[in-house]
Amino acid sequence: MPQYIAPLNDMSFVLFDVLKAQDLSLCPGFEDANEEMIRAILDEAAKLSENILDPINQSGDIEGCHYDPETKLVTTPKGFKEAYRAFADGGWSGLSASPEYGGQGLPSLVKIVVDEMACSSNLSMGMYPGLSHGAIDALTMHASDELKDKYLPNLIAGEWTGTMCLTEPQCGTDLGLVRTKAEPQDDGSYNITGTKIWITGGEQDLVENIVHLVLAKLPGAPDTSKGISLFLVPKFLEDGTRNPAFCGGLEHKMGIKASATCVMNFENAKGWLIGKENEGLKCMFTMMNSARIMVGVQGLGLAEKAYQISLGFAKERLQSRSLTGAKHPEEKADPIIVHPDVRRMLTQQKVFLEGARCMAYWTGMNLDLSEKHPDQAVREEADDLVQIMTPIVKAYLTDEGYFSTDQALQSMGGAGFTQDWEVEQLLRDGRIARIYEGTNGIQSLDLVGRKLMIKGGRLPKTYFKVMHEMLAKVDNEQHKEQCKTLLNTLQKSLMWLAGNAMQDAEIVGAAATPMLKLFSLTTMGVMWATMANVATADLTSGKYSEDFYQGKVKAADHFFRTAKSQAELLQADIEAGKETLMNFTAEQF
Amino acid sequence: MPQYIAPLNDMSFVLFDVLKAQDLSLCPGFEDANEEMIRAILDEAAKLSENILDPINQSGDIEGCHYDPETKLVTTPKGFKEAYRAFADGGWSGLSASPEYGGQGLPSLVKIVVDEMACSSNLSMGMYPGLSHGAIDALTMHASDELKDKYLPNLIAGEWTGTMCLTEPQCGTDLGLVRTKAEPQDDGSYNITGTKIWITGGEQDLVENIVHLVLAKLPGAPDTSKGISLFLVPKFLEDGTRNPAFCGGLEHKMGIKASATCVMNFENAKGWLIGKENEGLKCMFTMMNSARIMVGVQGLGLAEKAYQISLGFAKERLQSRSLTGAKHPEEKADPIIVHPDVRRMLTQQKVFLEGARCMAYWTGMNLDLSEKHPDQAVREEADDLVQIMTPIVKAYLTDEGYFSTDQALQSMGGAGFTQDWEVEQLLRDGRIARIYEGTNGIQSLDLVGRKLMIKGGRLPKTYFKVMHEMLAKVDNEQHKEQCKTLLNTLQKSLMWLAGNAMQDAEIVGAAATPMLKLFSLTTMGVMWATMANVATADLTSGKYSEDFYQGKVKAADHFFRTAKSQAELLQADIEAGKETLMNFTAEQF
Repeated sequence: MPQYIAPLNDMSFVLFDVLKAQDLSLCPGFEDANEEMIRAILDEAAKLSENILDPINQSGDIEGCHYDPETKLVTTPKGFKEAYRAFADGGWSGLSASPEYGGQGLPSLVKIVVDEMACSSNLSMGMYPGLSHGAIDALTMHASDELKDKYLPNLIAGEWTGTMCLTEPQCGTDLGLVRTKAEPQDDGSYNITGTKIWITGGEQDLVENIVHLVLAKLPGAPDTSKGISLFLVPKFLEDGTRNPAFCGGLEHKMGIKASATCVMNFENAKGWLIGKENEGLKCMFTMMNSARIMVGVQGLGLAEKAYQISLGFAKERLQSRSLTGAKHPEEKADPIIVHPDVRRMLTQQKVFLEGARCMAYWTGMNLDLSEKHPDQAVREEADDLVQIMTPIVKAYLTDEGYFSTDQALQSMGGAGFTQDWEVEQLLRDGRIARIYEGTNGIQSLDLVGRKLMIKGGRLPKTYFKVMHEMLAKVDNEQHKEQCKTLLNTLQKSLMWLAGNAMQDAEIVGAAATPMLKLFSLTTMGVMWATMANVATADLTSGKYSEDFYQGKVKAADHFFRTAKSQAELLQADIEAGKETLMNFTAEQF
Repeated sequence: MPQYIAPLNDMSFVLFDVLKAQDLSLCPGFEDANEEMIRAILDEAAKLSENILDPINQSGDIEGCHYDPETKLVTTPKGFKEAYRAFADGGWSGLSASPEYGGQGLPSLVKIVVDEMACSSNLSMGMYPGLSHGAIDALTMHASDELKDKYLPNLIAGEWTGTMCLTEPQCGTDLGLVRTKAEPQDDGSYNITGTKIWITGGEQDLVENIVHLVLAKLPGAPDTSKGISLFLVPKFLEDGTRNPAFCGGLEHKMGIKASATCVMNFENAKGWLIGKENEGLKCMFTMMNSARIMVGVQGLGLAEKAYQISLGFAKERLQSRSLTGAKHPEEKADPIIVHPDVRRMLTQQKVFLEGARCMAYWTGMNLDLSEKHPDQAVREEADDLVQIMTPIVKAYLTDEGYFSTDQALQSMGGAGFTQDWEVEQLLRDGRIARIYEGTNGIQSLDLVGRKLMIKGGRLPKTYFKVMHEMLAKVDNEQHKEQCKTLLNTLQKSLMWLAGNAMQDAEIVGAAATPMLKLFSLTTMGVMWATMANVATADLTSGKYSEDFYQGKVKAADHFFRTAKSQAELLQADIEAGKETLMNFTAEQF
């Protein structure tokens, strides 16, 4: 069975050498988050992931969750309860949560790095506290002090978990179609009635109480997404009464089989309003950035483990000879890593992984800066970057993380297709990340239809400004020129879109996916140019091995191998407009 | 549960309107294969696929195969025995086999179309007779009359099935590493000893006898792929004795779970030589073209069913409004097919599917022409095309068929990730087709390292000649120009490679994958230009609906939307050479 080893060197290089994340400790509230402290935390997270979460990943997939229709209870796979206990006891549930309620108040960036390890080692397991985190965020920002006092301490301690109950059979993307009803009661509570689907951890045996956050409609509320309110509905009430919020069954899914994906039936379950009436979606949106970045990191984390497995395989599997003559004449064949086509798959993975990690961590660091930096101008700029990068990180990391995992599987041949090597599970698990928390098509629309427009179009301006500032620090003229070409192509495509979007919203819709890809590609270019710059400067510093640094520089070269042509392809797709997509009638498909 | 409907109109359009497959009846031996006869056969195949194979596809995946370690026997899922019986009784096992031994002697092209339906409806089931077909081909071409008389009639009748035993734990791609031994016996037979893995249908309960074709080494044979011989090893000998060829277990796989993938242990099992000593690989190669084309068709077939499901879903699922205002104001939301980004996924599928079908059938028709056309020049030209197109069809159809299925899943959101809609199974099943019968990387190497070189480089010349001949018949000047651009880009890339390949075989290896993709793209262009030409000419013919023809013309336009830029990206990748792939040391990954 392949084992996950947390890539602490790669992580630290991005954090401390490229992004200077240790500077976050200069922000009020993050004083403790210096390099030494962050390194100590990551060392502990590595141990948890390698020793507790990773060993039960495959067994969890094979066993899956069990639903008992009699009791309506769900049992998680063997070992999950104990692993969750270790997670909670280690204080990982409240890593970035408010110290006021028992959290550790660490930067979101640190949580993102820990998330990456959790997702690499056991995505299904990581999802239970992941959903709690969303609930903690929503409560912290929007709930009354009374609700906070009652629910936050146990959620933050990991004694209880949280859920997000949004989707219903007739509504996923379009939450305006929510039918679940909330009827006000005399005691200030609400009776919640309706069916929710796709509820991660809606029912499970990891903890004693589950705190559901439920979107529902008040009587007479508008029949659109502006008529939805958010409610807190606990599994058990304070007096120990079982609230009628029962699991009606589990989804049978392609992957994340150890994550209980529940149908939840609320039948006059008691709940309390969070935030204002009819502002449920707004409450959800405020925590969406961190939730979407985290889903992006799932794609990254899975791809990291797949890379480790396929790289190990490529170094060990002996098959055929190098095209230029035997490299290991003492063996019956050479390891397959000698073959250019196998290297094509490995290099593609390395370039994605390390570039995407830099992109995600950079976005996470901006999330922290946007909340905690003492200078308002810095906070605003960082917020612009987070806003524009969130859909990009979510869609790019999950799409390309999936394809990176796919390359890992392919490079292993038949072995990759069997359960023996776990890569096929990583691929199946990762398939959902491209869909949930807003499909990647929705992320693209969020980017082109919303993020490019809000604040008078300031977000892309900030993006270009910061990209050029980063480039100004790059010494390698070739990398610099390549990045400028990418930025120019992106700029031209944006101008084309601006010139055509007014006529027709469907042109925006048609451009959405390639535009997000073009943003991603351009950002990757700047990340790689920056990383290669640091690696070149530190080549003989001894901080990491020369091979480590050389690997970064060579991976950057590989990134730029076809970046320009990739950008031109995306530009051509954007500028082709909507015609060949929209001119079919439904019958002509 | 979604149901498969054989796309008989799309199939017939390619066969009879685009390729004029009815002309095959002019070839000696194919006299019966006129349009009426082929249509009648396809109608029957459609019924078999829709009514017998499709209904047990999902249940077969969920149940999987069972192995009993006591008896070493394998049980297939519920319903498979009966379905196989219907398949064999319908005469489908011997569709293209020699009439001398009870086959129907029909063109391979007809078999390919039937294969597509079988793969769409139940790939796992289709693999059992699929492997028999390989064995039938190998025996027909290489076995002694005695062996043919003894084994062909029952294989062709489907009373027995066949297997291909090539892979061993230490050797997959590199068959020179085979360790299985064959010791000559006094009675002219051989004792076969060794372990084979990945043996489809190596053991099962569908038929009474299984005929294994086994690669093994004779004593003193060279320690390379030129030292391998092919043997026939039946499960039961003529006198009813059980031959010691036992199943040691089943692989646990990502997909094709109803297909029994066996470990086979041969322990002094009795076998007979097929063909000459040490020419086992040569025997295998002669049937490789049809086997590889069939695997390509698996990718196509799975993608076809996924397209049908996702298209139906897109027309029915109501969610959000069109970006240009409600299209169905009487409903609470519009069907998602109104959205440009959903159409991007549907259109991509349609363009792949129908173009790839044309490519595969065209290659299949050339396979028939290469064997049966009375004119030697025609036979030779057709053989050139089959040789060069075989790795392209295998790799392109399985890779892009997989990504097409992936798009189907994505367009369905969370529904696609559940077992409820079967698309996730189609995706899992299709993952292996990119690996077996030679990984797609190996296909690329076969193309650039072998097919471009043999016969003095004649194959690409024939390819370009025929592509230009097809283009000469196209009236649409834009399509014509686009195709010429593709052909020019391909030609330039080939010249670049020819100019650099001499220096370094690793440059060829580095170019292999993008070169195969560039060939595929170019061929797709010519196929689409040709199909659009026929559709335009026949628009009001009444043979098919105007919507049908309009759909073809519009899909062609979508293909050409970015074809030129895609080709330029591939050219850039090829001409970037080997550097950014080979300059890493193993430690720098």
